[in-house]
Amino acid sequence: MCPYHAWTYDIDGRLKTATEREFGPHQSELGLHPVPLKNIAGLLFVALGDDLVNFDRAVAEVGEKMKHQGLEHAKLAKSVRYTVKANWKLIFENNRECYHCNTAHPQYVAGTYDTARFSPHTLPEVERQERIASERFARMGLGDAMASSEMTGAYWRAARTPLMEGWKTQSLNGNPVAPLMGTFRARDEWSAGTLRSTIFPNFWQHASDDHAVATRMTPIDATTSQVDVYWFVHKDAVEGKDYDLRKLMPFWQCTSEQDWEICEANQAGILSPRYEPGPYSNVREINVQHFVDWYLGALSGPRTHWKSVGARA
Amino acid sequence: MCPYHAWTYDIDGRLKTATEREFGPHQSELGLHPVPLKNIAGLLFVALGDDLVNFDRAVAEVGEKMKHQGLEHAKLAKSVRYTVKANWKLIFENNRECYHCNTAHPQYVAGTYDTARFSPHTLPEVERQERIASERFARMGLGDAMASSEMTGAYWRAARTPLMEGWKTQSLNGNPVAPLMGTFRARDEWSAGTLRSTIFPNFWQHASDDHAVATRMTPIDATTSQVDVYWFVHKDAVEGKDYDLRKLMPFWQCTSEQDWEICEANQAGILSPRYEPGPYSNVREINVQHFVDWYLGALSGPRTHWKSVGARA
Amino acid sequence: MCPYHAWTYDIDGRLKTATEREFGPHQSELGLHPVPLKNIAGLLFVALGDDLVNFDRAVAEVGEKMKHQGLEHAKLAKSVRYTVKANWKLIFENNRECYHCNTAHPQYVAGTYDTARFSPHTLPEVERQERIASERFARMGLGDAMASSEMTGAYWRAARTPLMEGWKTQSLNGNPVAPLMGTFRARDEWSAGTLRSTIFPNFWQHASDDHAVATRMTPIDATTSQVDVYWFVHKDAVEGKDYDLRKLMPFWQCTSEQDWEICEANQAGILSPRYEPGPYSNVREINVQHFVDWYLGALSGPRTHWKSVGARA
Repeated sequence: MCPYHAWTYDIDGRLKTATEREFGPHQSELGLHPVPLKNIAGLLFVALGDDLVNFDRAVAEVGEKMKHQGLEHAKLAKSVRYTVKANWKLIFENNRECYHCNTAHPQYVAGTYDTARFSPHTLPEVERQERIASERFARMGLGDAMASSEMTGAYWRAARTPLMEGWKTQSLNGNPVAPLMGTFRARDEWSAGTLRSTIFPNFWQHASDDHAVATRMTPIDATTSQVDVYWFVHKDAVEGKDYDLRKLMPFWQCTSEQDWEICEANQAGILSPRYEPGPYSNVREINVQHFVDWYLGALSGPRTHWKSVGARA
Repeated sequence: MCPYHAWTYDIDGRLKTATEREFGPHQSELGLHPVPLKNIAGLLFVALGDDLVNFDRAVAEVGEKMKHQGLEHAKLAKSVRYTVKANWKLIFENNRECYHCNTAHPQYVAGTYDTARFSPHTLPEVERQERIASERFARMGLGDAMASSEMTGAYWRAARTPLMEGWKTQSLNGNPVAPLMGTFRARDEWSAGTLRSTIFPNFWQHASDDHAVATRMTPIDATTSQVDVYWFVHKDAVEGKDYDLRKLMPFWQCTSEQDWEICEANQAGILSPRYEPGPYSNVREINVQHFVDWYLGALSGPRTHWKSVGARA
Repeated sequence: MCPYHAWTYDIDGRLKTATEREFGPHQSELGLHPVPLKNIAGLLFVALGDDLVNFDRAVAEVGEKMKHQGLEHAKLAKSVRYTVKANWKLIFENNRECYHCNTAHPQYVAGTYDTARFSPHTLPEVERQERIASERFARMGLGDAMASSEMTGAYWRAARTPLMEGWKTQSLNGNPVAPLMGTFRARDEWSAGTLRSTIFPNFWQHASDDHAVATRMTPIDATTSQVDVYWFVHKDAVEGKDYDLRKLMPFWQCTSEQDWEICEANQAGILSPRYEPGPYSNVREINVQHFVDWYLGALSGPRTHWKSVGARA
């Protein structure tokens, strides 16, 4: 029901209020705009643009991995809305590389092998852990393990990444923070690492065995972005009993806020009349280049306006 | 006196500070800009534009009705300044129809017959109340009663409207909230309903027997309006003794804030690239259409910049 | 070190991180932008524009006076950042005249002779005090005294001004608020008045014997300026023991905030569509006219982008 004049709509957006006599047009002409809606293993995506991309491969590939995480049976434990004084593309570029992680994210790198992969000293250990994790993931029916991954499709990817040995989830010390979700819950089994999903241009998610953290961006103006971060747990989990927000949230709250800070500093520098773009690393910023190339292609080709609207609880 | 350089002006705006020797121009050239000023039964209106409309009929017609309300002997009990994130025209359109009242204003519709008039079930009772009120108003020398009214002039109207049977004033329960004002005070007589005055493009007022509430809008930018709401009582009334702001204010504070909320939602919807205008009701939004027609006419013809500046206390 | 990707630079801005293999360009091509830097008796100024003015005379003339104030051995006691809703030029014009001081700054005029100089009644006393101060300043090796002064160069000036008889520093009652600084400290001698330095377009300073207050403006947009006010004391002074912020700050905090208030009112008036510029006083606003002339000249000639960045501690 519209809170202004109380016009009432069906769940499919058709107007139920009779309008022809008093307003002229018949009610069948006054329904809500339809938008395409896709469900990826419990996450709902809508397309708001006119030129739709074919979203089927993204749905299939991301959904195939994400189906283990149990988002169909999740509830929102908490969300935080940030206003970040940076263009949305700077925030997405920041998300597309972990070159900055050693400097900016001490908590994040304590639990993941992302940055270790680029050092000749630590690479053998990373490869050993990838092998161990691959065996475990295969046994669990989860597919490959990779310490970090390139984008697999034009604008999406889903990759399962091992956590540091001994870590069960993305919490500050690797200890569980909520009851197991999805197929892990069914088997009472830990350590599927973190499933990372990324869908251009405004969504990413890290799903652990016991919770998932999704991030959605909305551009506000050329130098302002709204960023919503959502923490999901199993729908039956009870706050205070089964999970504690003070243990559930810090890992990604901390890492997210560290990112907003350097993105805002980056934006301030770019606004300087003396700013000149620097080069990207051809090793550690390949995914940034992929994003830039995709964006430039999207600008010149048909538009791809897919936006996530949150998880079904 | 100017707080910057202490130049001092007469009450009519003439500069009293001598300037010729030190500044060049004679002080007679440096007075304040004159603006036309009209007094409508105690409310002062100024015109800030260059192309003046003839305001005489508005002064006469609105003044004739308003003279009973005693604003010449009123004082400001309280004002509240709102910043509403909506174009001023959306707020004025909202004011020009009560189609939204049943949904948005439970407190308002409890005291007035506006919306009841459009239902075949309640119309007979409304007409009966209008007859009763018309007789009472005639006996009091106040003119007609109408449950709600169309604009009577090009850009103004004043209409006396009965309140629900048993209501003495526009308070949450209809009980008096301040000493009687104007001619009612002289005769100790209640129930002249509410005198509604509207002057395009930025003023409206509801005056009860014991208080009056005036609203003035100032456009800030395309999607922001400043709205000032003023509560007036008799100048001799003493706060805490003769009136209590907690009883005086809620009826219109509540109703106003309900309007700002739906106007802001309306503005947000209009800003969507998918927005398409809908039709107006040819029954319940006639006054909205009148406002739109007036505005389009004013845009193409001479401008009409009348602004109220508050009541004389 | 850059907090984003940990690139590390020498103190002279040369990049120390090797980049050629991973990024393409050699690190020698990726250093920080060089900017000219000048030290005026402890205050560091950088030029951010492309068309540099010759800053040598400003450095020499302002430095010659300022060298007594001991800013090379100062520390920042406190800074306050203001966001003023006024164009930066209005704030600078405000700084360039004391015509408004009698009205706006009761605390300021209690300690200085600025405004007294323009009254035929008080001028003899001002001239007597200038003579007394000139003798004292000459004995101290400090140059001339002047109750207030015109700009001496194209865009800079430094002038030593006597304080009211009996006042030792710019505090609310003229009593000392911190240990002596600079050459006064060495000689344990008071009453060098206040050394006023002004450098267009965004810097001014009042230095007393025991502290200095510098103001720096940064335009944000056409009607918003960031204004930073810095209070300096001797680097060995200990807060709570040698100085108390509640005594050090009020004189200039109060005077500054009075200025922001009238500048904001001025800006609001200028934004009115009815605004017409008024004339300047040919006696008391000569320095305003000088600023306006300089600015118009700078717009048409080479740019002069000198900005102060604070004092060396």
